[in-house]
Amino acid sequence: MTTPLRIALAGLGTVGGGVIRLLDANRELIARRAGREIEVVAVSARDRTKDRGVDLTRFEWVDDTAALARAGNADVVVELVGGSDGPALTLARATLAGGKSFVTANKAMIAHHGLELAQAAEQAGVALKFEAAVAGGVPVIKGLREGAAANAIGRVYGILNGTCNFILSKMEAEGRDFADVLSEAQALGYAEADPTFDIDGVDAAHKLSILASIAFGTRPGFGEVATSGIRQVIAADIAEAAALGYRVRLLGMAEEAASGLFQRVHPHLVPVGHPLAHVTGATNAVVAEGNFVGRLLFQGAGAGDGPTASAVVADLIDIARGEFGPAYAMPAAALVEPHAADAGERRGKAYVRFTVADRVGVLAEIAAAMRDAGVSIESLIQRGVSADGHALVAIVTHEGPERAVAQALEKLRGSQSVIGQPMWMHILGE
Amino acid sequence: MTTPLRIALAGLGTVGGGVIRLLDANRELIARRAGREIEVVAVSARDRTKDRGVDLTRFEWVDDTAALARAGNADVVVELVGGSDGPALTLARATLAGGKSFVTANKAMIAHHGLELAQAAEQAGVALKFEAAVAGGVPVIKGLREGAAANAIGRVYGILNGTCNFILSKMEAEGRDFADVLSEAQALGYAEADPTFDIDGVDAAHKLSILASIAFGTRPGFGEVATSGIRQVIAADIAEAAALGYRVRLLGMAEEAASGLFQRVHPHLVPVGHPLAHVTGATNAVVAEGNFVGRLLFQGAGAGDGPTASAVVADLIDIARGEFGPAYAMPAAALVEPHAADAGERRGKAYVRFTVADRVGVLAEIAAAMRDAGVSIESLIQRGVSADGHALVAIVTHEGPERAVAQALEKLRGSQSVIGQPMWMHILGE
Repeated sequence: MTTPLRIALAGLGTVGGGVIRLLDANRELIARRAGREIEVVAVSARDRTKDRGVDLTRFEWVDDTAALARAGNADVVVELVGGSDGPALTLARATLAGGKSFVTANKAMIAHHGLELAQAAEQAGVALKFEAAVAGGVPVIKGLREGAAANAIGRVYGILNGTCNFILSKMEAEGRDFADVLSEAQALGYAEADPTFDIDGVDAAHKLSILASIAFGTRPGFGEVATSGIRQVIAADIAEAAALGYRVRLLGMAEEAASGLFQRVHPHLVPVGHPLAHVTGATNAVVAEGNFVGRLLFQGAGAGDGPTASAVVADLIDIARGEFGPAYAMPAAALVEPHAADAGERRGKAYVRFTVADRVGVLAEIAAAMRDAGVSIESLIQRGVSADGHALVAIVTHEGPERAVAQALEKLRGSQSVIGQPMWMHILGE
Repeated sequence: MTTPLRIALAGLGTVGGGVIRLLDANRELIARRAGREIEVVAVSARDRTKDRGVDLTRFEWVDDTAALARAGNADVVVELVGGSDGPALTLARATLAGGKSFVTANKAMIAHHGLELAQAAEQAGVALKFEAAVAGGVPVIKGLREGAAANAIGRVYGILNGTCNFILSKMEAEGRDFADVLSEAQALGYAEADPTFDIDGVDAAHKLSILASIAFGTRPGFGEVATSGIRQVIAADIAEAAALGYRVRLLGMAEEAASGLFQRVHPHLVPVGHPLAHVTGATNAVVAEGNFVGRLLFQGAGAGDGPTASAVVADLIDIARGEFGPAYAMPAAALVEPHAADAGERRGKAYVRFTVADRVGVLAEIAAAMRDAGVSIESLIQRGVSADGHALVAIVTHEGPERAVAQALEKLRGSQSVIGQPMWMHILGE
């Protein structure tokens, strides 16, 4: 057996502690699989005195995170600090510039600076790996980069945020409203005190932009992802969707079209026959559709210390084995600039829900707007008046261009009949 | 870009043709991802004159399959001939002895001779890869070998045979009997003219033994897999299972227990809440449960030229990238002899169905046998008499040792009340 792979670890929160516990618990097994031991030699975190339930005295303690890049004669730096910039980015740059491999779970940093870091890693001939940045413990970066590497990918999409899926599936199971379930999720620790990044889709968009680069060979472009979250989903949307044979899921989706690449994170209606309709709770799941392999599904825990540590250490094992190459499946120089597709051209079925005033002619006005925009209605449900005197109209359209739906909604803007913003969700095509 | 990776290809059936079509269709993309072109230089098959819909004139034709090991200055030999021994094995040995990498989709050969071949590959410092041997296009070998490498695996199990799953899910959807659906599956090309390997579980057992070696670091031991197929599953089993909240699936399962390793392929009852309950048609799906990552699911097409070719070429891309190591995740010398666990000690819930004579005391006799063996009954359904004068009794037990169920069935052997063999199926624990 050769010399151990020496690790310097920045960040000792839940995931950092998980990595140390995992390396302790599975030490011998990992050494057999990796062909050498994987050994933490130095750590850095904000507070040296905090009890983290693991013995840290055996590691060199480094106060300045950036200095970890040169600490303890490490071969690899693992960054679990978080944040798209700041100390994490400083450490990443210093590590790669110093010719050491770099492993991170930091989706925000990779979404924003992945290309620069991949170039630095290639220049230094070292590894940049970030399996834990997408879908936690699920090896979906590897699945796309390697498992599906023989395929031209048509679409890659999935449930990328466990908090949103927990909330949506709880709303579904219990018929409760968003705000109510969010509070419970926060109390249970499934949602942050400030849940914005999760429920507004930003976290999923970070992950999607990483998947899209690997799947389509495009430069990471977080700014290209059209994003909306789940705040506007009401209990009635979930109930109407169910009545029509769908479940509501927040999906990140990247899709190659004639006019370019779509990248979007939105709540979708998923047909009950689709595997993603059965993904409940904080689970993540990613589907990749390849021109030879067909539909591949990867599913598992998207967060938590154990699953995330599993992905981090999988990256370390690849490095210990010497089985790594360009982070984005091809050299950074070979990645092409993505051409954003024209969303209006995209064809699909749509769900549109209106909250309306209870008065004569409302339905006629909505139907006329749809007709005038060329939107063909497959089914329509109108529900009786609620306590506040409002009614609900939910429509599923036939397949057609998204532009037409946008036009219909534009026509209805400012209507006295329609209360608040209509809720428009794409329906996942089989 | 460096020199191409040169391939010699043995076997030009559906999968062999698929590999050539894939390399043609995705040539440029693969070269970008692999860092070099992948180029077929020589081929071998039984009949040179047969029209396979691909242009073979550009390749060197080798009549003697074994000679392919030295043909065309190839770097890698791809074997798609099939058969556990014979020409495939001869070619594998010659290729590795000659210091070239070897890629195969041949589950039977790997199940029987994988250890020997892995040793030969290590000795020569070349790759032995067989992603396509398990679950077709689904990168589950990679998922276990690399993606889940940081974990001690508790169980690995799944739907490993598309033919059986096609038949079972069609029986389920249409309430039809096994023989009837098998004939249709044969007519549609989903089942072979001689379906024995598929429906008796041998094919799934080959695949399971490969997964078990990688998951548990044990020497491949095909002989250790207890195997039964789906011939004995009747429409009523599926209906009773559904009434009790289960679906019937043929599962391959390897599980670490205190007394050793279980390896088995049997029809199981899967709770409807489990992801495998939603896998229908010829799809394959594998679950791995790790001590840190929790439950991972890999799902996709388990057969067919496109998916299988996708897996074969994924192996070639790994080789082109130089990202490969020991076939079984660790050096062959580090694999340990599996200790077969005592099945009687295994605890779980069971389904037992009896076909019984329609007369007084039958139920009492069965219930007494269960009680005397210490089997606790959770639910029991007795269905009225069929045209042939027989009735049906279906039992779901509480969790208990499998030995007790075996004892109860032993007590009932030779009973005048019980007609034919009782059907005993394990129930998958959550």
